[in-house]
Amino acid sequence: MVKKICVVGAGSSGLAAIKCCLEEDLEPTCFERYHDIGGLWRYKEDPEEGRASIYKSVIINTSKEMMCFSDYPIPDDFPNYMHNSKIMDYFRMYAKNFNLLKYIRFKTTVCSIKKRPDFAISGQWEIVTECDGKQDMGIYDGVLLCSGHHTFPNLPLESFPGIEKFKGQYFHSREYKYPHSFQDKRIIVIGIGNSGGDLAVELSTVAQQVYLSTRRGAWVINRVHDEGYPLDVVLLSRFKNVIKEFMTTDMLNCWVEKRLNARFNHENFGLKPKHRILSQHPTINDDLPNRIISGKVIMKTNVKGFTETDAIFEDGTIEKNIDVVFFATGYSFSFPFFEDSVLNAENNKIPLYKFVFPPHLEKTTVACIGLIQPLGAIMPVSELQCRWAVRVFKGLAKLPSQEDMLADVACKKKEMECRYVTSPRHTIQVDYLDYMDELASQFGVKPNLLHFLFTDPILAWEMFFGPCTPYQYRLMGSNKWSGARKAILTQQERIIKPTKSRVLVDDDMKKHHSVIPFPLKLLAVFALLAAVYFICL
Amino acid sequence: MVKKICVVGAGSSGLAAIKCCLEEDLEPTCFERYHDIGGLWRYKEDPEEGRASIYKSVIINTSKEMMCFSDYPIPDDFPNYMHNSKIMDYFRMYAKNFNLLKYIRFKTTVCSIKKRPDFAISGQWEIVTECDGKQDMGIYDGVLLCSGHHTFPNLPLESFPGIEKFKGQYFHSREYKYPHSFQDKRIIVIGIGNSGGDLAVELSTVAQQVYLSTRRGAWVINRVHDEGYPLDVVLLSRFKNVIKEFMTTDMLNCWVEKRLNARFNHENFGLKPKHRILSQHPTINDDLPNRIISGKVIMKTNVKGFTETDAIFEDGTIEKNIDVVFFATGYSFSFPFFEDSVLNAENNKIPLYKFVFPPHLEKTTVACIGLIQPLGAIMPVSELQCRWAVRVFKGLAKLPSQEDMLADVACKKKEMECRYVTSPRHTIQVDYLDYMDELASQFGVKPNLLHFLFTDPILAWEMFFGPCTPYQYRLMGSNKWSGARKAILTQQERIIKPTKSRVLVDDDMKKHHSVIPFPLKLLAVFALLAAVYFICL
Repeated sequence: MVKKICVVGAGSSGLAAIKCCLEEDLEPTCFERYHDIGGLWRYKEDPEEGRASIYKSVIINTSKEMMCFSDYPIPDDFPNYMHNSKIMDYFRMYAKNFNLLKYIRFKTTVCSIKKRPDFAISGQWEIVTECDGKQDMGIYDGVLLCSGHHTFPNLPLESFPGIEKFKGQYFHSREYKYPHSFQDKRIIVIGIGNSGGDLAVELSTVAQQVYLSTRRGAWVINRVHDEGYPLDVVLLSRFKNVIKEFMTTDMLNCWVEKRLNARFNHENFGLKPKHRILSQHPTINDDLPNRIISGKVIMKTNVKGFTETDAIFEDGTIEKNIDVVFFATGYSFSFPFFEDSVLNAENNKIPLYKFVFPPHLEKTTVACIGLIQPLGAIMPVSELQCRWAVRVFKGLAKLPSQEDMLADVACKKKEMECRYVTSPRHTIQVDYLDYMDELASQFGVKPNLLHFLFTDPILAWEMFFGPCTPYQYRLMGSNKWSGARKAILTQQERIIKPTKSRVLVDDDMKKHHSVIPFPLKLLAVFALLAAVYFICL
Repeated sequence: MVKKICVVGAGSSGLAAIKCCLEEDLEPTCFERYHDIGGLWRYKEDPEEGRASIYKSVIINTSKEMMCFSDYPIPDDFPNYMHNSKIMDYFRMYAKNFNLLKYIRFKTTVCSIKKRPDFAISGQWEIVTECDGKQDMGIYDGVLLCSGHHTFPNLPLESFPGIEKFKGQYFHSREYKYPHSFQDKRIIVIGIGNSGGDLAVELSTVAQQVYLSTRRGAWVINRVHDEGYPLDVVLLSRFKNVIKEFMTTDMLNCWVEKRLNARFNHENFGLKPKHRILSQHPTINDDLPNRIISGKVIMKTNVKGFTETDAIFEDGTIEKNIDVVFFATGYSFSFPFFEDSVLNAENNKIPLYKFVFPPHLEKTTVACIGLIQPLGAIMPVSELQCRWAVRVFKGLAKLPSQEDMLADVACKKKEMECRYVTSPRHTIQVDYLDYMDELASQFGVKPNLLHFLFTDPILAWEMFFGPCTPYQYRLMGSNKWSGARKAILTQQERIIKPTKSRVLVDDDMKKHHSVIPFPLKLLAVFALLAAVYFICL
């Protein structure tokens, strides 16, 4: 009998979920609260409840070759970092190509997801949805929860005494749309995550003055990285991952911090945090240093309190006549349609086996998709989670015992607490490559580098030294994709094509370009062999 | 008898000119066409005739310690790169401090400057001005021409066939004020000088698409330079100048290009020119690479022609439905109030002795101020030119014979033609430090490093290794300034103060910061000694 799967949400994770169900001959039904796909990435003038809201100019911080779904490369003429409208174009192409739209019920809210009385045997769910005021109930064999983690704005007003007296305007960052209504204003942005940094930079183009207030400070990284390659393309390679293994955390911290300070001294720019670079989700921002050095953005400590017109900072300084405050203080997530006994996210903490499965259920027929904050792109991670989840639903991939799963959860939690600064932001952190490999190992789609080294050395070379693109997880195992090899071997061309739009006539067009210089590669052959040796151990 | 000096224009050069006249007990009268000081830097919504016009957000590309007048440091809380409104604040402070305003006749246009009949003996000028429709005539003993070289927009429409049929809008870059009226437009910016780059970046925040068209390409440099220090602070030091002496042009080109390509590969970003980095006035832009990699700015070759709606490029590509074209094609300068026999600037070429004095006059009682394009700040250069000029007017500094001056002009012209790509942009190029020293040598204010090495080694150290700030030219000779030493020894603090607005509590505040690491300094002591040796030769 074909299993019926409920997919909650038609954002990037939801689309991948539908696709993965179809691959495994499951019958997906996707419920989307609003009228369109895209989730977070669908721009709208007015923020909608229960959905993250982006501003008009927002451009994603992960690059196209690293963020695409694993069997559907982003067109070669699309820019490496895409504007939200381009991301939507890609999602629509994906949905159209795999014929996903017909499985989505738009404008339909999920009201409740409850275990059926025979759940311990059937693993089935009773799901009540609502559309146009009319409720409907259905029975499903599995649930893929794709509602995202940028759901409810986190607005910690209680930490800012006096805000109730403050006569200016204040907003959560999600309410920001475009700069021109803030012409000549005096603005404070609170929080230096990616949103806070972006808002401060954009507002500073029109504001009289922007103050960027941060409790901890941040290490700020350029997305236009070495030689102009995208940050994730440079950092996320198997080669670099092996190198990392030979370094202590302290060595790594020193090395990265030294490089960031060579661009601009974080202390002199008022940004230096007490913690090390690897202890916090990094802030990616190419424009901030230029705005700080021009005095358009002034770094400040945390706000201690507000008066009717002024902000008082923890270092005792006061900035007067503040017109607007933006709280770029992030989001929290929760699952109101579940009973607490099934899923309960308190303070953004949720114990899930490999960030996907609640370990305490009698049957693991529900999976949380995209409930992670990867150091890299989230889309291919969500997709791989879906691929694994549907294999589990079908019984083709086995989960360990409840005890082992709980032990794994506890271990991950401890690791995270050791590594990261304590913050609701750091409860769902994963390292892109390690986590992808870990997921892929669960159901046999992790690429065997040794195998390719002997059967297809050119491919193995690019797999090891090139960026670890999602196509690598379509080379072997279930639902492998025949185009994966070609996609890997042409990825460098797709990275360069959109920016190389003007060519010198006497240019040698056929010259090969690579992120890693040749001598380093030669040396690295030894590292490759060492790596293969370790993998085989 | 006190000499009467006419100063034309009350921009940055004009203000310095008035100040220098007063220092030498001359009697200045400054004629300013408009109602306020500031020249180029005074922002106005509507462009005014015969005056460069800036856009609202423009921020200067030279840093405060390098661009200030030599005896009046910019306040320590002012940002390193100042917004035009901050520059105006500084000019107003300068004018107020030295009581300059009373010497300016606002709303007064200079109609003609003619040699008096006895010019060969008296060197006097007959100057006709007009204010409120009323003409006035005065006799002056000298003229300081401070009308700038960003005067008349250069709009080479004849090079763009079809532009007359083009149904979209087209403008010279001077007409650009702010981006929001270009929301969702398809825009071509022609020219990749500093204006072209700035316009492309700012327009791309709102436009549907910006194409940046360039005939030659450009090397693009960050103003937030090594460790976040301002570009000119890092590059313009006596130490680096000595190092340069030991390198060939080719070595220097390779070294700088390699560093720029390490930030982003100019070829992959469609920017690479055929010429070398030192053969063109550099384009300073920190934001362009991020806009290119995001596809918001697309690099294009030169425009071959326009149709009613489209632009056809030299590489054969066509971009359709263009709404707006901006010609960022620079300015030209001329002196309509002079007879051609006195001063004539054809195609931006003007033969002046050390870019200041027309060499063919019977008496050198006219000086062109700020008629240069320095690789560095222009204000202190203009000021030093004024200081020299008034000494010449007073007869306290002597010029060589007409023959020698003409030979020097010819030699400079040849050097420039050898070094730079042929362009009206490259007729008045000077290297900041070399030119400042050259000017200073003319009237005995070039600092004697050897003298300071023995009498004040701490000062000598900062003078040699630190940025070569304008205060160095107030240490000795005529009108030296008692605050110069302190200004030099505190310049590093003034650079860091405005950005270090947030300090970690356990920060070691007293830690010394310097642009150059200690081991390099140690090595460089030898270079210092070598330099001193050369200077003494």
